[in-house]
Amino acid sequence: MSPIGMVLESEECPQLKKVKRLADLTSFFKPTSVAIVGASSKEGKIGNAIVKNIISSGYKGKIFPINPKDKTIESLECYPSVLDIKENVDLAVISVPAAGTLKVAEECGRSGVKNLVVISAGFKETGHQGLNLEKELARICKENNISMLGPNCVGMMDTHVPLNASFAANFPPKGDIAFISQSGAMLVAILDWSMVNGLGFSKVISLGNKANLTESDFILEAAHDPVTRVILCYIEDVADGEHFLRAAREATSRKPVIILKSGVSQAGAQAASSHTGALAGSDLAYSTAFAQAGVIRSTTMAELFDLAVAFSRQPIPSGSRVAVITNAGGPGIVTTDRIEHHKLTMARFNKNTVEGLRTSLPAEANVYNPVDVLGDAGADRYRLALEKVMTDESVDSAVVLVCPTAVTNAEGIARVIIEAHRSYPEKPMFAAYMGGEMLAGGAHMLNVARIPCFTFPETAIAAIAGMSAYANRKSAGKPVVMGEIQGVDRHVVKEIFQRVKADGRLVLLGSEAARVMEAYGIPSAPTVLATSPEEAMEQAEIMGFPLVMKVASPKILHKTDVGGVKIGINNVEEVSNSFLEISENVHKYLPRVVIHGIELQKMMPRGIELIIGMTRDVQFGPLMAFGLGGIYVNLLKDVAFRLAAGLTGPEIEAMIAETKASTLLRGYRGEEPADIKAVTNIMVRSARLVTDFPEITEMDINPVFAYKQGASALDVKITVS
Amino acid sequence: MSPIGMVLESEECPQLKKVKRLADLTSFFKPTSVAIVGASSKEGKIGNAIVKNIISSGYKGKIFPINPKDKTIESLECYPSVLDIKENVDLAVISVPAAGTLKVAEECGRSGVKNLVVISAGFKETGHQGLNLEKELARICKENNISMLGPNCVGMMDTHVPLNASFAANFPPKGDIAFISQSGAMLVAILDWSMVNGLGFSKVISLGNKANLTESDFILEAAHDPVTRVILCYIEDVADGEHFLRAAREATSRKPVIILKSGVSQAGAQAASSHTGALAGSDLAYSTAFAQAGVIRSTTMAELFDLAVAFSRQPIPSGSRVAVITNAGGPGIVTTDRIEHHKLTMARFNKNTVEGLRTSLPAEANVYNPVDVLGDAGADRYRLALEKVMTDESVDSAVVLVCPTAVTNAEGIARVIIEAHRSYPEKPMFAAYMGGEMLAGGAHMLNVARIPCFTFPETAIAAIAGMSAYANRKSAGKPVVMGEIQGVDRHVVKEIFQRVKADGRLVLLGSEAARVMEAYGIPSAPTVLATSPEEAMEQAEIMGFPLVMKVASPKILHKTDVGGVKIGINNVEEVSNSFLEISENVHKYLPRVVIHGIELQKMMPRGIELIIGMTRDVQFGPLMAFGLGGIYVNLLKDVAFRLAAGLTGPEIEAMIAETKASTLLRGYRGEEPADIKAVTNIMVRSARLVTDFPEITEMDINPVFAYKQGASALDVKITVS
Repeated sequence: MSPIGMVLESEECPQLKKVKRLADLTSFFKPTSVAIVGASSKEGKIGNAIVKNIISSGYKGKIFPINPKDKTIESLECYPSVLDIKENVDLAVISVPAAGTLKVAEECGRSGVKNLVVISAGFKETGHQGLNLEKELARICKENNISMLGPNCVGMMDTHVPLNASFAANFPPKGDIAFISQSGAMLVAILDWSMVNGLGFSKVISLGNKANLTESDFILEAAHDPVTRVILCYIEDVADGEHFLRAAREATSRKPVIILKSGVSQAGAQAASSHTGALAGSDLAYSTAFAQAGVIRSTTMAELFDLAVAFSRQPIPSGSRVAVITNAGGPGIVTTDRIEHHKLTMARFNKNTVEGLRTSLPAEANVYNPVDVLGDAGADRYRLALEKVMTDESVDSAVVLVCPTAVTNAEGIARVIIEAHRSYPEKPMFAAYMGGEMLAGGAHMLNVARIPCFTFPETAIAAIAGMSAYANRKSAGKPVVMGEIQGVDRHVVKEIFQRVKADGRLVLLGSEAARVMEAYGIPSAPTVLATSPEEAMEQAEIMGFPLVMKVASPKILHKTDVGGVKIGINNVEEVSNSFLEISENVHKYLPRVVIHGIELQKMMPRGIELIIGMTRDVQFGPLMAFGLGGIYVNLLKDVAFRLAAGLTGPEIEAMIAETKASTLLRGYRGEEPADIKAVTNIMVRSARLVTDFPEITEMDINPVFAYKQGASALDVKITVS
Repeated sequence: MSPIGMVLESEECPQLKKVKRLADLTSFFKPTSVAIVGASSKEGKIGNAIVKNIISSGYKGKIFPINPKDKTIESLECYPSVLDIKENVDLAVISVPAAGTLKVAEECGRSGVKNLVVISAGFKETGHQGLNLEKELARICKENNISMLGPNCVGMMDTHVPLNASFAANFPPKGDIAFISQSGAMLVAILDWSMVNGLGFSKVISLGNKANLTESDFILEAAHDPVTRVILCYIEDVADGEHFLRAAREATSRKPVIILKSGVSQAGAQAASSHTGALAGSDLAYSTAFAQAGVIRSTTMAELFDLAVAFSRQPIPSGSRVAVITNAGGPGIVTTDRIEHHKLTMARFNKNTVEGLRTSLPAEANVYNPVDVLGDAGADRYRLALEKVMTDESVDSAVVLVCPTAVTNAEGIARVIIEAHRSYPEKPMFAAYMGGEMLAGGAHMLNVARIPCFTFPETAIAAIAGMSAYANRKSAGKPVVMGEIQGVDRHVVKEIFQRVKADGRLVLLGSEAARVMEAYGIPSAPTVLATSPEEAMEQAEIMGFPLVMKVASPKILHKTDVGGVKIGINNVEEVSNSFLEISENVHKYLPRVVIHGIELQKMMPRGIELIIGMTRDVQFGPLMAFGLGGIYVNLLKDVAFRLAAGLTGPEIEAMIAETKASTLLRGYRGEEPADIKAVTNIMVRSARLVTDFPEITEMDINPVFAYKQGASALDVKITVS
């Protein structure tokens, strides 16, 4: 069968089978009752702030403060322990010293409390001892089937329940943005900031140390939450790569997920012995995972929230064609530049629109995109322009620019924009009110009407770009699982690896690697090992000529330099002579190196030189590379990456298309195109190989020769652990 | 002499000699008296707004409203014409219908008015007729030695004179930012915006149609203006590339110049017949010119003003090492990421600092960069941290992050930051107050004290990055003019070009191009043209073997395909046979193509394949290219660009260093390095050649072979106009 359309996610793939069932968080977010362990009556204490927050958020369920020293807290009856509550407790918020949390968690387990929010600090973040405490806490939760947020977190909020189970000072207005943050400080800062900026949230979650529930659980929960329209995350790492990929894929098929992942520079480049590893760098697995899962990655906090506002308040555009309406030329050009910068398209109006604009607007107005309604435009002229532009089928979104002039009626224009948005609710609209006081009233009206209004047009265009990226992801649809790849012999590979390990080696010999290729149906240059001239001659007769002969020793990196390579060998005599010559050369240069023999490889015709490689990421597993190969691979750096997990045929095609190598493959300067299907086949089978064998830590096939018909793996380097 | 350190700006260079003297704008900005032609007493008229603005700006000189229909305007005596004023008039602001401006300008000329601001619209921007009117107006100004701003502009302001000679509604507070805008609407918008944001300006200039005074004049004026600290420009094009380069170079040696140049996407890729032209694209000449002149190019309006604030309020950092002080981990990591993103450096504290921080701060605090003073930090803890960090010599700038917590004292921390800034005024400081209402008071205090305070730390880091880029430009210093290149024969080249033109051709034959190379001392493969087998044999004996023979015809693009190339020719017999064979082949394939003969070229040993090329920019002249050459040049796109104008040896070295080709030249994978000096020599001489001969429209030397010793031009394609 054709490898195109194939997904590396069959039932036979052991790596992807053990997917965890996600927790049911219904009672976590909508508890009928909440206990606060460590509740306090003392103003300024966290245990007091939590109780007050729960009360003031308008929570309708029962509230049980727990503290052995108090009778009542905030006029509520106080209990010595969760064991003393005779009613059902859905959620317990714990704010006691770290050492005390284990006992509390055990009591919760015994009382049947299924959800914990552990506010207490003093765990993993404090060092070794704290880490042990945290592991113990996690174990107790697992044994008692408890879902736990934290420890070391600010808490969580649900504005629709409503419930503020946190010690944060601000409880935001109801909204449709779910915000999940690994940094408590960031969460508090954002809440404070959003109060001024009128942002509403559905759920707010402070992840803390993620000892039990992780970002993936909450992403999935928010994905299924009917009132959440967009999911925002700030994370510093991902707790479980596989779990995250599944959760994010599912979430992005339902609604946008925007993530600010920090710590880009923290990990540092790993020491890598392969080309692929050296090219991948430390942050690449994350950006690849996000891209493959359809997550929008934001690089700044400003971008994160501009996108949140856009997704929350406007529909997703059905395409990338933007219309611009302006009352001044300069800002129109700046906006056009940004549209091009973000690889969006300036909408090309159809004839009717252009004619309509020509009839409605003054003669000097520009009736093409950007539409210039001129400096003396009142609200009416904006209305005329918007009516024409918004009905045009070739417009997917619109940005309205307003510069202050003597006649500018900022409020009037705002009303016109709001009206147009109501008439065409399916097309996203943005405004840029470029000024201060003269335009403030109109800008405020727009924001109240949920039409994002920025000071500068570039913010609007960046937001549209993010939305379009998501729209493209959605329209790409879900990959189709196509089943198993034919002609794969795992047993052979297993045996080879066992032998290599028994031999105390980490790197396969060329002949061994060639047999691994063969076992996985990857066409490669026949390669055999000979330990004597006679064996070499025998093998050569079977293999045929011309041949290349190379010393077989993973210890020798530059075989040519020690006289360890002979090319263009055409008969058995030359084979015999070369065997002896290579042996002597190597012995002369490197008398102490033990060689495994001499390898014979069939000389292959030259093709387009490619690299197909893999480096294994700690979090996300095999990361596949494709690009221009040969000795300049690290110089040209023309390499695209994809995670092997769930890799599809269309994704491999996209991966190839990203590289300059694809230009060569399609036929450069009038040459015939190469067999891209054959290259894709090698990629699919390589991805399967490294997925099937987690002991492969790195693999470089460099070069792969691509021909007009077929492709072939030449040099294969496989490192195992 | 060595080409390194050479500048293409000698006295013998005809292109760069005719540099205009810039206008003296003292009386333009500081006039002792101002006339307003077209002054009006009618509220709402532009002619009325200008008079009122001049009065209300506090202008101390004499004001002469001119309007034949009025006796007084705004209580000032009104004159029928500028000719009727018996006193000296330094500046006339003209706001009469376009057609009337010529007469007014002439009258101004006769009265000795040396400065005009023409507000009137109806010129170039309205089409052909308007353009003629504008040319006429410019001619009158030139003849009368008048400096004119406009036409079609908002006017100009100088807050220190003070004088508001514009019809803009806002007159900004005094400050040190000069703002020059080609868009009047943008200017008005920015003034309105800056009133809210507390930005002060020194000069504000609306360029209008730039018929006489241009951005370059005002950039230079602002460069010499003692109260201006930073120059901001919004431009859509440059009026005169050469003038701009000189003005910008001089200005950036004195103070930062930040330009937002729009219209990036407007020009579209020009049709280009050379590789260099195809690679250059439409906006490249601008970005190259800006970079070479030390201008900071901003791509968004937000960035333009963030940089303006930073340069205006803080000193320029002496290096790129940033210290971060935070009360929360997450924002610290985000900030670290942005520092790396912008290629700045996280400061590495010296031992004393680390020890000092360890003694002063709680045990859990992070005493390395970013310094984490912890969530419960009061102002005192920030003070302790700042004292240690600011004294550290390995810190060039600092960013202080504040997240709201229960104990955060935003004002107290602001006071500490202000104090630290006063104690260490030479190190730029920025703050990010990540929140809304809880921090607003402190943020306000900081901005009043001229310490830029943003909501998100990424803005601060971007500003520091812009400042560091400028610092690097300044520390790079001015290029030294080194005089003329030896061994250049212009006469030979002139003759060749004359013959090519007489022949009705645009493209030189290979043999002609080789002689051009020779005349400019550029080592190249000897190439001669033969028109008969006998001549070819004779030439071959002189040249020596082995040889390549090629059909000589610029019309034949793919010479190999028509049997027009023979390589590896080793003796005269082969020469004779090849001559006939090539002639027959070409005649068979292309019977109608006239060939000029057969070219003989000495076969050169293979070296590293490079391209050195030139495409001519309409505005900035020759744009030189350097990179990886060969047939994959358009695929690999490994090319750096520099303008030939004023190109220096160090700039050529930087240009080479930007490319992957430089990795090869320096010796890739243990190979011996190539002769970079020889490559630089070819670049210098090529730049001189295309500067000396403006009729060269495009040039590709591809490949240039670089050897261990020397370099050689192989295929040279020169197109002339």
